[in-house]
Amino acid sequence: MNRSPRDSPLAPALEAAAWLNTDRALTLEGLRGQIVLLHAFQMLCPGCVSHGLPQAARAFDQFGPRGLVVIGLHTVFEHHAVMGEDALAAFVHEYRWRFPIMIDQPSSSGPVPRTMARYGWRGTPTTVLIDRTGHVRLNHFGHLDDLSLGAAIGHLLAEDASAPEARTPEAARSGTCTPLGRG
Amino acid sequence: MNRSPRDSPLAPALEAAAWLNTDRALTLEGLRGQIVLLHAFQMLCPGCVSHGLPQAARAFDQFGPRGLVVIGLHTVFEHHAVMGEDALAAFVHEYRWRFPIMIDQPSSSGPVPRTMARYGWRGTPTTVLIDRTGHVRLNHFGHLDDLSLGAAIGHLLAEDASAPEARTPEAARSGTCTPLGRG
Amino acid sequence: MNRSPRDSPLAPALEAAAWLNTDRALTLEGLRGQIVLLHAFQMLCPGCVSHGLPQAARAFDQFGPRGLVVIGLHTVFEHHAVMGEDALAAFVHEYRWRFPIMIDQPSSSGPVPRTMARYGWRGTPTTVLIDRTGHVRLNHFGHLDDLSLGAAIGHLLAEDASAPEARTPEAARSGTCTPLGRG
Amino acid sequence: MNRSPRDSPLAPALEAAAWLNTDRALTLEGLRGQIVLLHAFQMLCPGCVSHGLPQAARAFDQFGPRGLVVIGLHTVFEHHAVMGEDALAAFVHEYRWRFPIMIDQPSSSGPVPRTMARYGWRGTPTTVLIDRTGHVRLNHFGHLDDLSLGAAIGHLLAEDASAPEARTPEAARSGTCTPLGRG
Repeated sequence: MNRSPRDSPLAPALEAAAWLNTDRALTLEGLRGQIVLLHAFQMLCPGCVSHGLPQAARAFDQFGPRGLVVIGLHTVFEHHAVMGEDALAAFVHEYRWRFPIMIDQPSSSGPVPRTMARYGWRGTPTTVLIDRTGHVRLNHFGHLDDLSLGAAIGHLLAEDASAPEARTPEAARSGTCTPLGRG
Repeated sequence: MNRSPRDSPLAPALEAAAWLNTDRALTLEGLRGQIVLLHAFQMLCPGCVSHGLPQAARAFDQFGPRGLVVIGLHTVFEHHAVMGEDALAAFVHEYRWRFPIMIDQPSSSGPVPRTMARYGWRGTPTTVLIDRTGHVRLNHFGHLDDLSLGAAIGHLLAEDASAPEARTPEAARSGTCTPLGRG
Repeated sequence: MNRSPRDSPLAPALEAAAWLNTDRALTLEGLRGQIVLLHAFQMLCPGCVSHGLPQAARAFDQFGPRGLVVIGLHTVFEHHAVMGEDALAAFVHEYRWRFPIMIDQPSSSGPVPRTMARYGWRGTPTTVLIDRTGHVRLNHFGHLDDLSLGAAIGHLLAEDASAPEARTPEAARSGTCTPLGRG
Repeated sequence: MNRSPRDSPLAPALEAAAWLNTDRALTLEGLRGQIVLLHAFQMLCPGCVSHGLPQAARAFDQFGPRGLVVIGLHTVFEHHAVMGEDALAAFVHEYRWRFPIMIDQPSSSGPVPRTMARYGWRGTPTTVLIDRTGHVRLNHFGHLDDLSLGAAIGHLLAEDASAPEARTPEAARSGTCTPLGRG
């Protein structure tokens, strides 16, 4: 990630065809002041289903209460006929994804949809972090491990001292050892 | 974690009986200005072997080049006779842990060794993060997920803008989808 | 599983709407003399995608050369509009499933397709093992661990001594210990 | 594995220095008529701790009620001083292994203990299956996947029709799909 907003590009606007899991359209402008995680995926992309989307869901559960906005972006660039809105809705229902999901606006001139083209994404899964000032601080194609994503989120959260107190999750004690016996 | 050093206690000094994987003793005073991750473990603690130590090794590999100091602390409070220095050395050799490991100084008055007592740890695994000013910002007993630990490290790294540029790891592309075909 | 064909029902015939990954339709009658693993799934069923289909693929790779026939059955009983043949073909292409896959014949009278109704399956994933005499020896709904599935397959393979010699896979030596050093 | 006892060697006798988790010494002769799984391990062997011993425990839980005898063999050929009986007892206690564990008799002439030498094992983990007639049907060094081990156990269980009825475990329904809704 970029350590400073200065060398980071401003995030292009999102071009949405439709939204799921939210009753109003979201815009990056409207989210200024908040940290935004965009997860670009396709519902038939194996790496998205096994890794990217579960990771986005973990980030949503864990950092949503601390101000992180998680948005799934369905950026269909192949198999368009079978990854339409109805198919996506069934997929979201079955997998119980709960964060807002935007359908990227198709392009009239090629298979790559508009937001994907604007951001220059190479494929799916892609993970993007936008800071409170609207700059793209991380733009990562492919598998991203949790330690790295956590560090990038932690860095952006630290940039504003007025954010609410961070919580460390109450962890399962299973497998632990204490002087009083094993957990 | 604590968002500010102000409400965080100063880290007590380490009391070492011996060190592995380093040719000189480390002190927290000598590490002032660096972020320190202490991982307290026992070589026969299942949760340490399956989760805590591998996580410490990942943090060492990933954030060591960015200035994080990782120290394993062998805090033996049970089965003392079979977790001595020779046993630990064999364990470290077989598992190929590469970060510095300190053996906590036994107490003359009870089973809990001295550093463990000073920090008030409840058992193993325990993860501690100390900031550049020597304050304990995270003190966590039990399983800690990678997103949370990553966020805490990222927060502390962000507190000093003079740190070197963060790198996002070159990730495996397996399972990805691109407009040119699958990875 | 049933230890004997005697108390086991004869397997009902398959009713196929179409086939993928094979250039000719398969019938249980035509497969008499071979052991058949049916894996009933839906392409949008999370448990099928994360566990059932990968397990079927492992069984196909490992026991196919020893005479096990693996057939995926796409038994769509919900979201019919978005799990048609084209959608399934894209799914199979992206996930690279290589074993033959049959599309269960829809019913004119309800959501449950015909083969599913004949076998009385409760849902997906479901795993069925048919012995060389055409009897259903295992009919399992839900997660099935590899030890259990392996044992059932091994039992059926043992019922015919004329089968080719079993091979134990050449395993990775990583993590092993030898008197000559670690693997 | 060998499909027939005819081409399989008779299992050499076990030479025990001591036993854990059983109040009497076991002998292969005394176990004739039962299928025996020997799991040769060392308590400081990473592949044994992460894979081999958990697999032996699964086999013990799942096939013990159906007549499989599981025996852990602590075959120490390195780091002898720190893998003695007391250390092993602490290890077994902490990890809660419940199947009988034999300590292999040290050799007076070299580091490799006697049972290990008799069987010609190359290192740890090693998995051995002995059939009801006392023949070694599987002798595998290194990682062995659950499907393969299950198949070998299933084959041996099938060789005696008088064995009790096999049970398929009641599986978790989580992630399943039924016509009535998701599990």
